[in-house]
Amino acid sequence: MKYKAEILCVGTEILLGNIVNTNSAEISRGLASIGVELYHHTVVGDNPQRLKEALEVAFSRNNLVITTGGLGPTYDDLTKETIAAFFGRRLVTDPDSEQRVRAYFARWNRPMTENNLKQAMMPEGCTVLPNDNGTAPGCILEDAAGRVAVMLPGPPREMGPMFRQQVMPWLQQRSDQVLRSHNVHFFGIGESALEAQLRDRMEAMENPTLAPYAKDGEVLLRVTAAAKTEAEAEALMAPVLRKLRETFPDLIYGVDVGDLQTAAVQTLKRLHLTAATAESCTGGLVSKRITEVPGSSEVFGFGVVSYANQAKMKLLGVQAATLETCGAVSQQTAAEMAAGVRALSGADIGISVTGLAGPDGGSTEKPVGLVYIGVDSPWHSEVRRLNLDRGYAIGREYIRWVAASHALDLLRRTAEMR
Amino acid sequence: MKYKAEILCVGTEILLGNIVNTNSAEISRGLASIGVELYHHTVVGDNPQRLKEALEVAFSRNNLVITTGGLGPTYDDLTKETIAAFFGRRLVTDPDSEQRVRAYFARWNRPMTENNLKQAMMPEGCTVLPNDNGTAPGCILEDAAGRVAVMLPGPPREMGPMFRQQVMPWLQQRSDQVLRSHNVHFFGIGESALEAQLRDRMEAMENPTLAPYAKDGEVLLRVTAAAKTEAEAEALMAPVLRKLRETFPDLIYGVDVGDLQTAAVQTLKRLHLTAATAESCTGGLVSKRITEVPGSSEVFGFGVVSYANQAKMKLLGVQAATLETCGAVSQQTAAEMAAGVRALSGADIGISVTGLAGPDGGSTEKPVGLVYIGVDSPWHSEVRRLNLDRGYAIGREYIRWVAASHALDLLRRTAEMR
Repeated sequence: MKYKAEILCVGTEILLGNIVNTNSAEISRGLASIGVELYHHTVVGDNPQRLKEALEVAFSRNNLVITTGGLGPTYDDLTKETIAAFFGRRLVTDPDSEQRVRAYFARWNRPMTENNLKQAMMPEGCTVLPNDNGTAPGCILEDAAGRVAVMLPGPPREMGPMFRQQVMPWLQQRSDQVLRSHNVHFFGIGESALEAQLRDRMEAMENPTLAPYAKDGEVLLRVTAAAKTEAEAEALMAPVLRKLRETFPDLIYGVDVGDLQTAAVQTLKRLHLTAATAESCTGGLVSKRITEVPGSSEVFGFGVVSYANQAKMKLLGVQAATLETCGAVSQQTAAEMAAGVRALSGADIGISVTGLAGPDGGSTEKPVGLVYIGVDSPWHSEVRRLNLDRGYAIGREYIRWVAASHALDLLRRTAEMR
Repeated sequence: MKYKAEILCVGTEILLGNIVNTNSAEISRGLASIGVELYHHTVVGDNPQRLKEALEVAFSRNNLVITTGGLGPTYDDLTKETIAAFFGRRLVTDPDSEQRVRAYFARWNRPMTENNLKQAMMPEGCTVLPNDNGTAPGCILEDAAGRVAVMLPGPPREMGPMFRQQVMPWLQQRSDQVLRSHNVHFFGIGESALEAQLRDRMEAMENPTLAPYAKDGEVLLRVTAAAKTEAEAEALMAPVLRKLRETFPDLIYGVDVGDLQTAAVQTLKRLHLTAATAESCTGGLVSKRITEVPGSSEVFGFGVVSYANQAKMKLLGVQAATLETCGAVSQQTAAEMAAGVRALSGADIGISVTGLAGPDGGSTEKPVGLVYIGVDSPWHSEVRRLNLDRGYAIGREYIRWVAASHALDLLRRTAEMR
């Protein structure tokens, strides 16, 4: 079956802007990864009439509608009721779902109000999708014309696993091709510069395809191939991936590696090295990102947030003379911070960040966005000077984020020099 | 004019899930804050035919359509062209916009390719919205029937300021009432528990209204009033805000304060106190959140990320015997870490976090999600024990986030005890 999909999210809280619609992004990525065409996102509030009208619009232009939200126990949860009516089905109690709802409350010793059993009422003839992370099951409803409605719960922690573990396999079974992709992660080049270098190749290629995406100061290049089997798709991509690695040896920090911190931690682990951090303007963001990676305790044990000069001197041994002469935001201070935290911690690599994240505190000589990243190790020491101001308000958090990204990049590069 | 709005985002990258649609959330919040009704979000790709059809659907059910995206210089940027055709208008060069585009490139010493001038072609008779953060101007197009199309650029850093500074005032001028709201921030109570306590009052109230929203382990209660003037709206809300503060003195950490870290920093500033952090499982997240607040350097100068036991002993003076007998994740270790970082830094308040964020490392006795938050000050010391596991996969990052939130809450409470 060839599906054309629409995502239809139900929830007044999305229309009020109280929550960002991450569900649509997650479902979109999943559909793209298995080659299901998706042309529309729609959001309506918890209003059965507008939901019914949105269903009519959606099924007039697409044959697969994936909804999120409105499956819960309260009176304004009406997605199942509205879609069942649209498909001409009754709601009937699903005994397994009822048992799961009851067991959920029993397990947490919470009294169950009767309205919770509404969640076990499912459209007749549907495929029930059990909810492993909450009480409201989802379901898939198909009609004779081949129209499919997939109903998923609204909370992302319930929706995500249900979509990935139950809906995607269901869709893949109905497809005659597989789509596979790899993410090539670049740091140190902008999206438009990368696109300019790849444009000819990108336009000439049909399978696999290349698509660059800019995100948070990095670029991700997605390589995607369609084939009859997974092995065939991989074989189509292998020479392209090889060529990219040859062309950009210095800019690619990993393939399918996820992010800079994971790449850094993996490199440290592989080489049996340890790192320590000394942060000023990033205030702990570098160590926070390193410790996001499960198992990072093998390679990281020690960080200092030396926001005050006092901390730079007392903990890291930065010289008072350096701070007086060069200032806290300087090449020398960054170098002494990196060396200081390495000495303090006994780690193989010390990494430091000092800079001006703004919004205040900048001067002509040292403007907001000026950041120094230092690294110290027995085999390599270096200080990178960055100017992260773009001439308009890019914001304190963005400057801190990109500064931390440079620190993680420099950490990985230094480890690889060993 | 009474508007019924729809947000129509244009961008294939949204349908691919490569970017999350934060623009819709931002515009939605803005419209809600000035009382413009919004019933639909729609997303279509960079495809003029589907954009035209989406416009037809949108204007069949609403009279104000706000688009984002598709205003740039490339061949697939077709929003203006499509909407102008839909309204029966030609595109004509706007001299001011052309001058701004040229000046933008001159200022950054970048060569301007001719396709950039396409951005200065605007629908005849529109109100141009200059772009202070990029090259593509937006515009507002009205027809005789009162239908309005507002076109905004796609990048959030360009869209946001243009919407807030130009579109919202334009809409407010056309409205006969003002809507004002205050956000009451709760920590330490769930959304459903708060809703249960407030339900009777919420249902009885019409103006102002109360609406609770759960977010990242906190609850925000929005109080909104509609009136002829701002002062009238405030007068309607004042007694409600007073009553809420009386009813929940221990759970409300601020009104319109933004977040826990801002509340903590403001409290420390007001009381002329300083704080230092000692973090294990949160890995720097507490200090990162504190230093998100501009000006936090007045109250925070010193943090330690003691991920390894070695760091806990060496920097914070945690006793080896404590770590051996009680373990790194224990009440005693949390207490010694808080006292240790206070002694090391000379701050008024030391705050510590030690726990198991998972996914591995848990045991029956000390399961994943067990976190101790310690605080030490001359006037109050305490250790909070948390169990942040909910029985299903809530994830490492969520445990770390909520643990950090508790640390920030305990920091503020301790300051207030002074």
